[in-house]
Amino acid sequence: MTVRLSAKEIEDALLKLDGWVTVDGREAIQKSFKFANFNQAFAFMTRVALKAEKMDHHPEWFNVYNRLEVTLATHDVNGLSSKDVELATFMNKIAG
Amino acid sequence: MTVRLSAKEIEDALLKLDGWVTVDGREAIQKSFKFANFNQAFAFMTRVALKAEKMDHHPEWFNVYNRLEVTLATHDVNGLSSKDVELATFMNKIAG
Repeated sequence: MTVRLSAKEIEDALLKLDGWVTVDGREAIQKSFKFANFNQAFAFMTRVALKAEKMDHHPEWFNVYNRLEVTLATHDVNGLSSKDVELATFMNKIAG
Repeated sequence: MTVRLSAKEIEDALLKLDGWVTVDGREAIQKSFKFANFNQAFAFMTRVALKAEKMDHHPEWFNVYNRLEVTLATHDVNGLSSKDVELATFMNKIAG
């Protein structure tokens, strides 16, 4: 079962998630990634897509050329869950 | 050399581009695509990414699960060019 994180849990999680911030007016987190070019950006997106599909937990994302804006939230709990933390952690790891 | 399309050329092009519309306050075109699921949406995005990279002409796009919002414009001409028409035509073709 997916459980909604408390404000304290979100705060603690963000301390370990470099670059991720909360979204104004919505219980979600976001991060802007920048790559060398589109090729690198889309390669990153592809790795995230495979992970997301495996988790059955998908990002909201906007890409233009080398820039990628990602928002994560868990609709089932109308907020954030450990799935968002897991996906954000994965993105940070592979963005290296 | 990339040439900026005239208003008449844009109008004519849109007649053949099902679902594409102009963007308010900006010389660009956009379309919203809907797929069965994330897998199908990202498969489509991957085909478009390969085409875009080959053309060296990239979309602005927002995806969440099975939905994809695409905006096309040509920065070099500060408007629309034949590259946008070509990429939009390609997307319509493979979206089937």
